[in-house]
Amino acid sequence: MRGLTTIGFDADDTLWHSERVFRLTEERFAALLADYVDSEGLSQRLLETERRNLDFYGFGRKGFVLSMIETAIDVTDGKVPTSVLKDLIDLGRDMAAHPIEILPNVRETLHEVAERYRILLITKGDLLDQEQKLARSGLGELFQAVEIVSDKSPATYQRIFARHGDGPERSVMVGNSLKSDVVPAIEAGGWGIFIPHPLTWALEHVEAPMHAPRFRQIERIGELPALLASIES
Amino acid sequence: MRGLTTIGFDADDTLWHSERVFRLTEERFAALLADYVDSEGLSQRLLETERRNLDFYGFGRKGFVLSMIETAIDVTDGKVPTSVLKDLIDLGRDMAAHPIEILPNVRETLHEVAERYRILLITKGDLLDQEQKLARSGLGELFQAVEIVSDKSPATYQRIFARHGDGPERSVMVGNSLKSDVVPAIEAGGWGIFIPHPLTWALEHVEAPMHAPRFRQIERIGELPALLASIES
Repeated sequence: MRGLTTIGFDADDTLWHSERVFRLTEERFAALLADYVDSEGLSQRLLETERRNLDFYGFGRKGFVLSMIETAIDVTDGKVPTSVLKDLIDLGRDMAAHPIEILPNVRETLHEVAERYRILLITKGDLLDQEQKLARSGLGELFQAVEIVSDKSPATYQRIFARHGDGPERSVMVGNSLKSDVVPAIEAGGWGIFIPHPLTWALEHVEAPMHAPRFRQIERIGELPALLASIES
Repeated sequence: MRGLTTIGFDADDTLWHSERVFRLTEERFAALLADYVDSEGLSQRLLETERRNLDFYGFGRKGFVLSMIETAIDVTDGKVPTSVLKDLIDLGRDMAAHPIEILPNVRETLHEVAERYRILLITKGDLLDQEQKLARSGLGELFQAVEIVSDKSPATYQRIFARHGDGPERSVMVGNSLKSDVVPAIEAGGWGIFIPHPLTWALEHVEAPMHAPRFRQIERIGELPALLASIES
């Protein structure tokens, strides 16, 4: 086999915490509605709204806020005060201002991997949000290219690994989402390395492709250099 | 001078109508609020909210809907019924579903220009929205590359024309926004061709760079091939 040349990294919950901010916001959403509606089942209702809206809003903070507003109106039969809806808009602003918390060993691992491979950042979500998070992370200059995409399909990985690397066959995608990072990269002909994160959005869950020869799982990003060496040996 | 090789096109209100959909939505917004607030000054209030939110939301439909909701709550001192706010969310969905109306002569002109030059689409706005509009326009396969960006600065054009062309010096940007398309492309060292559109968002207005040697203005996109030929002669 010709060797690997290109490593793609997911961003949210692979390089830095993200879902934690959504969960925190969702707790504040439930607290704001506590006087008007039973919190039982509220999370499920919000998730249903998000799922229904995915084709209209895509991924990211603005769509999440719009889904919170819609859910708040629906679950209260319209009785939610508009002051609470303004608070939900403010929650969205707080999310944007939330400090970036880089996951352990990310910086060292990226530096080490960047010495041997081209490294790419491949992320979905709101364009502006993702750019601002990357800028604040201080990790930007490590990446040869940054691709912010609306969806992560096999065709997405084909295109990105062809444009910035030597095609998917010589590329690896690393991320915490089986659905978005691992499975489509493998379907595109590349390697998919899964690093589970304790919090992962319910809409990102799929079965692990346990029998795919190019599937690997590690528990921490710090294990990545050794895993890449073992793949190449 | 070495010749031009690369032509960048803005999308909204350069290739297809867009601001018209925002204006129509704004009229429906005013109609929905007509029972609660004087429509006098409403448009100005909405614009102020949009301007204030630009750093949080960037450009595009989702931020526009969030700004409409916020303005509706503010101008009615919170008295707007939540049913109206749900209608505003629906207006955002209607915007996404609005058919693409390609401007006159766009298709023929792009075909003609693409025979001699590499052509790029360079647009800002919601990632998903812009991708969906391009897909529905049927123009996608004409472009060598599509760049959806959060902002259009001189650095943006430097980067894009270096990546997909031979640098800004041999590139032209064509668009209806002096602020986003024309002035920053000229500042990056390229040519900026302004095609005014009767509706242009107030936040996109700046002075025309009348004395810049690489500034040109035409009234219709159909005049572009002749203009490019005259620049090169």
